Amino acid sequence: MIQTLEWTEQGVRFLDQTKLPTQEIYLTCKTYEQVADAIRTMIVRGAPAIGVAAAMGIALGVRASKAETVGELKRDLDRICEVIGRTRPTAVNLFWAIQRMKEKFEGLQIRSLAHIQGELIGEAQRMHAEDIAANQAMGRHGAGLMPSSGGVLTHCNAGALATAGYGTALGVIRAAVAQGKKIHVYADETRPFLQGARLTAWELMKDGIPTTVISDNMAGAMMKQGKIAAIVVGADRIAANGDVANKIGTYSVAVLAQENHLPFYVAAPLSTVDLACPDGSQIPIEQRNPEEVSHIAGKQMVPDGVAVENPAFDVTPSKYVAAIITERGIARPPYAQSLRQFAGAEANLEV
Amino acid sequence: MIQTLEWTEQGVRFLDQTKLPTQEIYLTCKTYEQVADAIRTMIVRGAPAIGVAAAMGIALGVRASKAETVGELKRDLDRICEVIGRTRPTAVNLFWAIQRMKEKFEGLQIRSLAHIQGELIGEAQRMHAEDIAANQAMGRHGAGLMPSSGGVLTHCNAGALATAGYGTALGVIRAAVAQGKKIHVYADETRPFLQGARLTAWELMKDGIPTTVISDNMAGAMMKQGKIAAIVVGADRIAANGDVANKIGTYSVAVLAQENHLPFYVAAPLSTVDLACPDGSQIPIEQRNPEEVSHIAGKQMVPDGVAVENPAFDVTPSKYVAAIITERGIARPPYAQSLRQFAGAEANLEV
Repeated sequence: MIQTLEWTEQGVRFLDQTKLPTQEIYLTCKTYEQVADAIRTMIVRGAPAIGVAAAMGIALGVRASKAETVGELKRDLDRICEVIGRTRPTAVNLFWAIQRMKEKFEGLQIRSLAHIQGELIGEAQRMHAEDIAANQAMGRHGAGLMPSSGGVLTHCNAGALATAGYGTALGVIRAAVAQGKKIHVYADETRPFLQGARLTAWELMKDGIPTTVISDNMAGAMMKQGKIAAIVVGADRIAANGDVANKIGTYSVAVLAQENHLPFYVAAPLSTVDLACPDGSQIPIEQRNPEEVSHIAGKQMVPDGVAVENPAFDVTPSKYVAAIITERGIARPPYAQSLRQFAGAEANLEV
Repeated sequence: MIQTLEWTEQGVRFLDQTKLPTQEIYLTCKTYEQVADAIRTMIVRGAPAIGVAAAMGIALGVRASKAETVGELKRDLDRICEVIGRTRPTAVNLFWAIQRMKEKFEGLQIRSLAHIQGELIGEAQRMHAEDIAANQAMGRHGAGLMPSSGGVLTHCNAGALATAGYGTALGVIRAAVAQGKKIHVYADETRPFLQGARLTAWELMKDGIPTTVISDNMAGAMMKQGKIAAIVVGADRIAANGDVANKIGTYSVAVLAQENHLPFYVAAPLSTVDLACPDGSQIPIEQRNPEEVSHIAGKQMVPDGVAVENPAFDVTPSKYVAAIITERGIARPPYAQSLRQFAGAEANLEV
């Protein structure tokens, strides 16, 4: 079992994803600022994992608070949440986790500050466990969508390393393989950060699932040659209408899937669905450091004086999405209805 | 003026394209075997440049021949052509150049072996000059297809560095800019060899043409955001029906162009058109070393035990191609007719 992140007495322990696949190094963040840095620098990445990391970071910060009153602790919590909320703008799980921790705080009976601190630590650990359970549920729901044999393409890493464990898109693949399906995974290397080459390949290799890495620009040719039977990816934010923000290049994969009459699936927990966001045009897209594109492994690839763009995500319109696999079942078009049914049920109960 | 390759008394002098953009290093191949290695290792690349390099390599080999009779020289020529012909299978310009040098040999009045050697050197130099002239003609024909202002996307490098000079796709862009068109080039970095990031960006920067490098998987998003008005690429082999073999990823760009209602143009000399090849399915696709994908700048990016594919080219069906810009004019669909009209005219004359 890959331990992407876990709560320890010393702090939040992360498998450093910037060092994979050649080095398996764990590091422990002892302050919430260190957790914020780990999210920002992509030591931990993937929308669900970012959500859990944020909750654990908040718990860490609250535990270290020197507040003497609930009011002071609340101010500390707000400051901690603000720092963690400024790390990465696109994955809505970050804001979902912050909101959930704040609501947990608000709902607590005040006994002692130590009690509050303990409850928030417990909530973060619960979110970790719930995320794994959600992924396993997605696997059960989604496995039936996978072909009994053949190639399945995935983009970026939506696996154990992008979540508390098991994975969203790769969870669906793992569940299908566990059912005896003969799946060969094609992993887009996923420039610029190479999550496919470095992370997806690494965790599937550990599980003995046959995998071929291709550069992103080969995916279309593989589809056209009949090597791909289906596509499954994760998501960083899904708008109410089913538009999907995911790793840059996902939109291209979806268009190529449509052109080649292949189903394009998205697997994501309901914490990724943002019902407050009407459509993809409203999703903020993170622009990262151009050096991630212009330099690889420390080597300059783009000459000085030439501009570089580095949007970390793109938006795939819902019309390209055959189904969205959630922990409560498979959402089908029209997504405005199906997503609200799955995600909104809970929201309605809270009213 | 960029000197991609040139004939010198010492041998064939190449700008080493594996070292760009950070180092501008020239090296001189003194034997035809060294020229073959330069083609194989992509010190020189790009279909038209490969053709001229092959011709110069043949001239070099014939000049060094110790043959004492025309028959012996013919056997040497055949052996030289076989070695050079085994370097890269997809770009038809290689075989076109070999054929042209052989035909030149066959057509010569036999005066002396030195005369034959001199004539073949002259033929190779003529092909160098003709290629530049062809590119300038493509520029004149194609410039009108470019937008008066806006983004133009290109993939790989089809510039001065891919030809004897000026470029095919980039020649069209250069001609449009010379006409006063305000073009901003978006250059796909073009994994795995990064010809876009390293070569296209370098030569456009030298010309002062505004350029932004993006990773290949960003092209779709840029089109969807309205940043691209047209696409122009080169070609390694064009079948009689207009199917285009070009750098891996070109097919994806063409599909994305169609989905976004953008014109997708191909610029290539008629030496790239293979009328003997009925359609794209008959074009041999070179598979290169997987390490070009798995390792970048010497750093391992894919874990051991995971497969990698590395097809160097893909085939874009002619239905996605709005026009093929040649040195004799703009070919439009149906290409089976228009290409035969341009390329076949000469072939018919030879019968």
